[in-house]
Amino acid sequence: MTDPAIAYFTEDASVAAVTARVGERADPRLTRVMGALVTHLHAFIKDVELTQAEWALAVEFLTRTGQMCDGNRQEFILLSDVLGVSMLVDAINNRRPDGATENTVLGPFHVDGVPDLPMGTNISRDGVGESCLFQGRVTDLDGAPVAGARIDVWSDNADGFYDVQQPESQPQPNNRGVFVTGADGRYAFQGIKPVSYPIPDDGPVGQMLGQLGRHPYRPAHMHFIVTAPGHQTVVTHTFVKGDDYLTSDAVFGVKKTLIADYTATPEGPTDWQSTFDFIMTPEGTQ
Amino acid sequence: MTDPAIAYFTEDASVAAVTARVGERADPRLTRVMGALVTHLHAFIKDVELTQAEWALAVEFLTRTGQMCDGNRQEFILLSDVLGVSMLVDAINNRRPDGATENTVLGPFHVDGVPDLPMGTNISRDGVGESCLFQGRVTDLDGAPVAGARIDVWSDNADGFYDVQQPESQPQPNNRGVFVTGADGRYAFQGIKPVSYPIPDDGPVGQMLGQLGRHPYRPAHMHFIVTAPGHQTVVTHTFVKGDDYLTSDAVFGVKKTLIADYTATPEGPTDWQSTFDFIMTPEGTQ
Repeated sequence: MTDPAIAYFTEDASVAAVTARVGERADPRLTRVMGALVTHLHAFIKDVELTQAEWALAVEFLTRTGQMCDGNRQEFILLSDVLGVSMLVDAINNRRPDGATENTVLGPFHVDGVPDLPMGTNISRDGVGESCLFQGRVTDLDGAPVAGARIDVWSDNADGFYDVQQPESQPQPNNRGVFVTGADGRYAFQGIKPVSYPIPDDGPVGQMLGQLGRHPYRPAHMHFIVTAPGHQTVVTHTFVKGDDYLTSDAVFGVKKTLIADYTATPEGPTDWQSTFDFIMTPEGTQ
Repeated sequence: MTDPAIAYFTEDASVAAVTARVGERADPRLTRVMGALVTHLHAFIKDVELTQAEWALAVEFLTRTGQMCDGNRQEFILLSDVLGVSMLVDAINNRRPDGATENTVLGPFHVDGVPDLPMGTNISRDGVGESCLFQGRVTDLDGAPVAGARIDVWSDNADGFYDVQQPESQPQPNNRGVFVTGADGRYAFQGIKPVSYPIPDDGPVGQMLGQLGRHPYRPAHMHFIVTAPGHQTVVTHTFVKGDDYLTSDAVFGVKKTLIADYTATPEGPTDWQSTFDFIMTPEGTQ
């Protein structure tokens, strides 16, 4: 029996009219999530008193966003990224103690199944770019080395493109590798100093950024996934200190603790050197 | 100069990190709407602590919804409808004084350019269904007749389909017409008693309804658009009193004041008769 107060739609009771309609046999979590979605969505519409023209524009924007997606392009993830949603979901699901290495977004350019390489290997297989030695330690929260940690790394090339974006002109793989720590927890490999680049901005999301007066650039970064038995997986980047876009990353990926020193080493075997330690959090820690 | 507290992303200041990024030259209304969108969207995600699997499901759902759209199908409008969003936007933009005829959703089956017909014409050109006489008056808030009001009407056929959904098997147009009131403000036409029907439920929105334990039916209704110089346009339906789905319309279109008597008239020239008066609101009234 429907409560007569919400049997029919009214502006005031719009949320209750919708949420009351969910059947008794729906999954409790789905009921909770959809109830909250309707609550916040209606609050947004009431807050701004959305016009019918704006509603029509939103429908058209979402439709174009869906139709921009194909096997190589996920425009809804891009939308989630530029609204800070991807970072927020990542943050909520990866809360860690102070001192532990923080997560950031995975991004669309990770590749599974890249072969393990010996420590010290140069992952820049085309040799283009300013060479950089990446090194550091993987430890637990107490500073003890973590052995057997797998460090999966990838970056763009000197032109700002990942290998998978340029299958014709870059060797495959390029600027990618996996390294496994020994008893000392140390890692080292050679690559290039990454460069900043724009996210794809030729679709609806790029148009939206333009209308908001926002640029599409990400600051230069090296991607890392660090996995070790008994520890939470760290999906993160190190960002190049001094990059122009550190405080305006189009996808909000920068956390203060992830900004790394990249030191010029004109006398060394590489142009640059960047040292960064990964501090792992035990599984089950919040 | 970016405020250092929000230069980098944090869970606590996630909204400020995003809204601070809007350029100074953005349109003020766009800035306001997007700021509110980010505020409410982040609040939703924090409220339910959305998991990464749920986020991925949402991305996939929105993508499929966009890709279901074509010239004949608008799945995002359907999504808006079943979440009560379409009705809420309509309500906010069409607030009227007590006693005035209320709006409801337009729906996707209106056709422009249907010819005017003489009062009393039968719009059921295939003659299938239970015949019904629709009649009443168009008046202002004081009860004075409104002359020159255009009444654009349309309904489904006896099988629950609009003519445009069955271009092969129904005459075009069928169950559609436009009538213009004279000095007495009266209208009358013959059609069929409309029947309840399901919204298209073979796409992502239908799957969502299924998982929520909701049915896809709309209660039987006759569509009306009433326009008259100096008055607000009324986009509405009359609903058939006693219909099984009045309190569970899949798109929340039913308002109590729009439920109309449909009276059986076994001795009359039609099987049924439905009288409904349209009370117009002057332009500019809130």
